[in-house]
Amino acid sequence: MEGSEAAKAANKMLFVKTIKEIKQIIKNWRKEGLSIALVPTMGYLHEGHLSLIKKAASENDRVIVSVFVNPTQFGPNEDLDNYPSDIERDKKLCESAGASLVFNPEVSEMYYDNACTVVSVKNLTSMLCGASRPGHFDGVCTVVSKLFNITTPDKAYFGEKDAQQLAVIKRMVRDLNFDVEIIGCPIIREQDGLAKSSRNTYLSDKERKAATVLSRSLNKAKEALSKGEKDVSVIKKIIIDEINTEPLAKIDYVEIVDSLSLSEVSKIETPVLIAIAVFFGKTRLIDNFTWDNN
Amino acid sequence: MEGSEAAKAANKMLFVKTIKEIKQIIKNWRKEGLSIALVPTMGYLHEGHLSLIKKAASENDRVIVSVFVNPTQFGPNEDLDNYPSDIERDKKLCESAGASLVFNPEVSEMYYDNACTVVSVKNLTSMLCGASRPGHFDGVCTVVSKLFNITTPDKAYFGEKDAQQLAVIKRMVRDLNFDVEIIGCPIIREQDGLAKSSRNTYLSDKERKAATVLSRSLNKAKEALSKGEKDVSVIKKIIIDEINTEPLAKIDYVEIVDSLSLSEVSKIETPVLIAIAVFFGKTRLIDNFTWDNN
Repeated sequence: MEGSEAAKAANKMLFVKTIKEIKQIIKNWRKEGLSIALVPTMGYLHEGHLSLIKKAASENDRVIVSVFVNPTQFGPNEDLDNYPSDIERDKKLCESAGASLVFNPEVSEMYYDNACTVVSVKNLTSMLCGASRPGHFDGVCTVVSKLFNITTPDKAYFGEKDAQQLAVIKRMVRDLNFDVEIIGCPIIREQDGLAKSSRNTYLSDKERKAATVLSRSLNKAKEALSKGEKDVSVIKKIIIDEINTEPLAKIDYVEIVDSLSLSEVSKIETPVLIAIAVFFGKTRLIDNFTWDNN
Repeated sequence: MEGSEAAKAANKMLFVKTIKEIKQIIKNWRKEGLSIALVPTMGYLHEGHLSLIKKAASENDRVIVSVFVNPTQFGPNEDLDNYPSDIERDKKLCESAGASLVFNPEVSEMYYDNACTVVSVKNLTSMLCGASRPGHFDGVCTVVSKLFNITTPDKAYFGEKDAQQLAVIKRMVRDLNFDVEIIGCPIIREQDGLAKSSRNTYLSDKERKAATVLSRSLNKAKEALSKGEKDVSVIKKIIIDEINTEPLAKIDYVEIVDSLSLSEVSKIETPVLIAIAVFFGKTRLIDNFTWDNN
């Protein structure tokens, strides 16, 4: 009770590292009849994350921000060891955006050495980022399931930048009957159009400039779509040609898929997700938009 | 509110077929501050199930019995289509044992056509029944996760007869931070020693008599263990030799494993699970006991 009351009294954000403590705080919040939101992040927060936290704070009594960097969603050759982190900065940003609690457990707090349970969304994870990052979405689904069970949120907020992640989490919640509403929030962009991402900090100055080709290529596709183009291969070519004008860009994928099933489409009829992943040096960036003819 | 109050007033057991309705009833129970138990079964209840329900009723304010026959835990050549069922009998038995609610959803209520989320406990499911029944425990873990999320029980009761299932569910609950206490309950046996099972009804008279060899073989092992035998191969041989005295019995497996990790042991030092699966005609029966030298 103390943690919660003290926080309310002082309007001070809580910082919690153990599952036991956060569960006790949530139990007390529930006793008070408060609604609870979860914003799962991996820290090193940018304005995209802050938009999630602000929206969550406007719709719920309490907002939990997880900044746990989940090792199981990184591949063996990915950037886990170098993933950027600045917990003191994150805490300040969370507080300013209206968070009630920052959850920052150690890896050993979240995973026993012999942990062996995995949550998989089978059909939505073999394409797009799932193809480039095998096992990634199993890691995401498993840790999000854990966070849901630990924090029992009424609503959870995810960015639309990770479009496949959002589709996968929605499917998981539906299939496993999690009692949580999933809220997708729009991509937040830099002034020059680059989608905000913690990984943008990896970019050299030249790569940073080159990376504007992502949103530029998607805008060209949007233009063609709004003029009535319905042929997937034409739209794909527009995007690929634009990205290829940039020598530092190396395409991982350019895909147009059904926005719910994520399966390939040949014509643009149902709402589609147009998603791209592009390497700049070792840094892999993603961007996307959803298009609905109707 | 009505369902719960009516039930309390008339002390009448509820029978529910939809997720929406059971969630509403549970919400009302929670508002009243009642503790809730879940007993997941596949119906066609016997005294083993009833012992779980009675124990649950003695320890909780409300007891939910699921009798959903989960198709995803049956293999393609298993007995899903012939699995015995008598819902009216089950309802009477549940009521007499102290259940508050019987949950009997249709398959279409539990699984969307495009459901694709699977919960797997990787390391505990490749051996024993998992080896004979690939995919079985994925089906069990997925449906139990769903039932946990739908019913949010404080405690859930499982029979020790399905020893591997119990170990797998305990691991899943720990790994995914489900907020539920798993209670294992002792095997209930017929007078001649055969462990109670819904599948016993498949047996012909001759097979039924032959099936007593299961418990008889385990009793011989127990005898040797209590005399100090510690060699796994000796204990295994005692069991196999006894089962082989019965011409109708065909061994699926005889295994001695660590009771927590389910990994093979060569010497009996840690607590072990001694588990057997034997075919009588097409009917596959299991039995087991746990042995702790200490």
